[in-house]
Amino acid sequence: MLETIAVGNEVGKDEYEESVPALREELVELQHELRERGFSVLLNLVGTDTHGCEEVYDRLHEWFDARYLAATAFDLPSDEERERPLFWRYWRALPRHGRVGVHYGAWTLGALAARLRGDLDDAAFTARIDHVERFERMLADDGTLLIKLWLHVPKKEFKKRLKRASKDPLEAQFVDERDWLMLEHYDDLVPLAETYLRGTDTASCPWTLIESTDARYRDLTVLRALTAALRGALERDDAARRAAEVADAEDAGAQDVVPTGDVLSGIDTTAALEKGEYGDRLEELQARLHSLAARACAQGVSTVLAFEGWDAAGKGGAIRRISAAVRARLIRVVPIAAPTPEEKAHHYLWRFWRELPRAGRMLVFDRSWYGRVLVERVEGFASRDEWKRAYAEINDFEQQLVEHGIVLCKFWLEITPDEQLRRFDARRDTGYKRYKITDEDLRNRARRDDYVAAVNEMVRRTSTDVARWELVSSEDKRWARVRVLEVVCDALSARLD
Amino acid sequence: MLETIAVGNEVGKDEYEESVPALREELVELQHELRERGFSVLLNLVGTDTHGCEEVYDRLHEWFDARYLAATAFDLPSDEERERPLFWRYWRALPRHGRVGVHYGAWTLGALAARLRGDLDDAAFTARIDHVERFERMLADDGTLLIKLWLHVPKKEFKKRLKRASKDPLEAQFVDERDWLMLEHYDDLVPLAETYLRGTDTASCPWTLIESTDARYRDLTVLRALTAALRGALERDDAARRAAEVADAEDAGAQDVVPTGDVLSGIDTTAALEKGEYGDRLEELQARLHSLAARACAQGVSTVLAFEGWDAAGKGGAIRRISAAVRARLIRVVPIAAPTPEEKAHHYLWRFWRELPRAGRMLVFDRSWYGRVLVERVEGFASRDEWKRAYAEINDFEQQLVEHGIVLCKFWLEITPDEQLRRFDARRDTGYKRYKITDEDLRNRARRDDYVAAVNEMVRRTSTDVARWELVSSEDKRWARVRVLEVVCDALSARLD
Repeated sequence: MLETIAVGNEVGKDEYEESVPALREELVELQHELRERGFSVLLNLVGTDTHGCEEVYDRLHEWFDARYLAATAFDLPSDEERERPLFWRYWRALPRHGRVGVHYGAWTLGALAARLRGDLDDAAFTARIDHVERFERMLADDGTLLIKLWLHVPKKEFKKRLKRASKDPLEAQFVDERDWLMLEHYDDLVPLAETYLRGTDTASCPWTLIESTDARYRDLTVLRALTAALRGALERDDAARRAAEVADAEDAGAQDVVPTGDVLSGIDTTAALEKGEYGDRLEELQARLHSLAARACAQGVSTVLAFEGWDAAGKGGAIRRISAAVRARLIRVVPIAAPTPEEKAHHYLWRFWRELPRAGRMLVFDRSWYGRVLVERVEGFASRDEWKRAYAEINDFEQQLVEHGIVLCKFWLEITPDEQLRRFDARRDTGYKRYKITDEDLRNRARRDDYVAAVNEMVRRTSTDVARWELVSSEDKRWARVRVLEVVCDALSARLD
Repeated sequence: MLETIAVGNEVGKDEYEESVPALREELVELQHELRERGFSVLLNLVGTDTHGCEEVYDRLHEWFDARYLAATAFDLPSDEERERPLFWRYWRALPRHGRVGVHYGAWTLGALAARLRGDLDDAAFTARIDHVERFERMLADDGTLLIKLWLHVPKKEFKKRLKRASKDPLEAQFVDERDWLMLEHYDDLVPLAETYLRGTDTASCPWTLIESTDARYRDLTVLRALTAALRGALERDDAARRAAEVADAEDAGAQDVVPTGDVLSGIDTTAALEKGEYGDRLEELQARLHSLAARACAQGVSTVLAFEGWDAAGKGGAIRRISAAVRARLIRVVPIAAPTPEEKAHHYLWRFWRELPRAGRMLVFDRSWYGRVLVERVEGFASRDEWKRAYAEINDFEQQLVEHGIVLCKFWLEITPDEQLRRFDARRDTGYKRYKITDEDLRNRARRDDYVAAVNEMVRRTSTDVARWELVSSEDKRWARVRVLEVVCDALSARLD
């Protein structure tokens, strides 16, 4: 597959100079059209021709309107990156909608180097390919146009270029272990790369393989691939808009279908704790959590807690019982409200990725990524397609956290509508809690049936092996607080040495 | 000063429980009022009572509306932080307007630990105090309410608490070198802290010293200090609004005063290069820059280049001649357009701080922080007070870059109005450059006189020892590109071993 493209393609100077101006003009026109539509474009540059990748990387700054370009060359990860799940460094570099991101290396080089290094065995490499395929699909679904270019030179040429670089006292510093790994295992690399390229070559995120020995051929082919990809994205977007109009009409009928089965009604809302017992249990569990959190820090184990539940269900109170038990420097509480414009200009999971804690820390989300399939679904902020595919995206996200060794707990705090109303009334009477109640709370209350359907579907679809939902009755706040603490303590205990 | 506050203050349980509810209620009301006005609040917690600081840090999460709280405990810096100027880690943690930031340790602990460790001598410590004082004033000027709390316990108590923590196998990991340093040099620490506290105790950012031996006294005093500070900020804001109305009226007259002296007219706009000579010089300088950039990377020396100039003066072209010469992974070009809402919700320098490169990299700003005293001044986006004080803030910022060892060059590209018009016309005729011209460009052109005044004042006020302006005639693009390359090469040469 790779060797077959090395047929000695060349482009003469005349042809190059004749073709380039019109293509550049079209490229910039297309870039602006896509920008106006809020598309982001993400270009992945990678291949055996590392030198060529850098030359193309330079060209891209000339060809595109550089004001809307965001380029990242992925060197070896920093300590802040190593302490987070693998893809954190890629998430933090994602371009905002309307921008063209250029990534050199990124997750493709990461996967190949890890396999060559032996960090991944065959099975793990296959799993990584699946992971990448899902990750790229998620970006594409979110309106990102992914353009993946593999620049290829044969072994002899690769070796020649690498040797030349490594002998130059200044160039040598840029040759990192991954280059040598690729050369040393070139004969393994080619079939591995082919497996990877095939496994991630999908309809929405196809690969373009480019012979890179002749620079003019390479540049012209890249330029043509870019304009074709951008043009194609615009055409697909036109078609999608027409299709969306039809789908919206169908959607109106479909929304009435409430999924069967009600996991919430199975929660025992009579569970309660006496004040005295509560005090004892709270003290005991907080002391336990205090020490577990300290041990987790010593062992570099991070914890992520996600809290969902009805308004006034007592999320804040439960969270405070946790944060009061843990040393302040080890815990951070992130309340999730409506997204900022910056957050809106990214995939909805981006804001959660960027908050992920360093090794040994605890992060608590007061509301979470589940907003996508709760409030955004019910209020219509996300389209049917968007929230439907969110279940799989969320499962992927949580799996990555757990695979990185993070302790993940997610809680649904349940209260009855009557109890909720009592609490709203009580809040109105307590001065410093008045700010906690808004018109929105009352509006949400009116849509309880829609929310019940959404919660049920959420729990059924996202209770996975790696991340189970903990449904906690919060009718009695004391019971809920103790139960939450207990779950967190048990999860940490199970994970720590 | 510090020992005098240790007089054994205590608060009984009854007094505490009577006083707290009303204060908490007031605190939340004040927090929301300030939030609506777009104030940010930044609380610095520090002192010999490290244990008490963490307890208060917890309390703050209970007392404030935690949804608008952003807390950071500053441990030892990460590698990403160590590779940037000292204050980068503080900038990246600054709360956005409307939020309450809680910083534990931060620059106060940083300064004291550095002095005790011997990283700073007396003169450098004094300079650091000046720096902190200017930094805090800058935040205060920008509408941040700074509340600085020093929690104090006497040596005996400090020693007891630290020993107890260090003997506990789980607590011991949180005792870092800075704690031992403070204990070991406690007798030096007290006078140093007093010098620091006095030097940074200003009208807009005063210190509150709190005896911390009795937890109830400490908490109640903190709560009182917070409500008083927030209340005071609101009152000052009311007064400032009234004053601003008067000032605005005066402003209208003041804007006509054009500063004397015209540095721009001193630029020789006839400087030019023949095509042949240009080609030779360009090639030679790009080769030189290529190698210098690689050496800079090897030596961990970063470079920051700022480009300003008239629209169509050729900033982009000059920058491309630089980026084409440097390996793509070593250079990043950041075009500065109108700020995003996220950027607007911070100090105007925040967006530049967050972009600062890791060690050994080159960062190019296509337009820069000078927008504050150029477009924002002329178009009225910044008030007279804001752009007036920006000169000193910018000089401070640049000094920090240079003190960190960064090579800093700033360019003004000058063209005559006639040449500018010719280029606008030419752009309209070149398809792929059409997007580079906007109505704004034409509007700016009409205000050339205002801009000339602003540029003159900018150059005069911000050409400092550490960061001189390079005024480059760009009437002939070839001349400008070569000159820019030459300046960058010379600056790098001078800095490298």
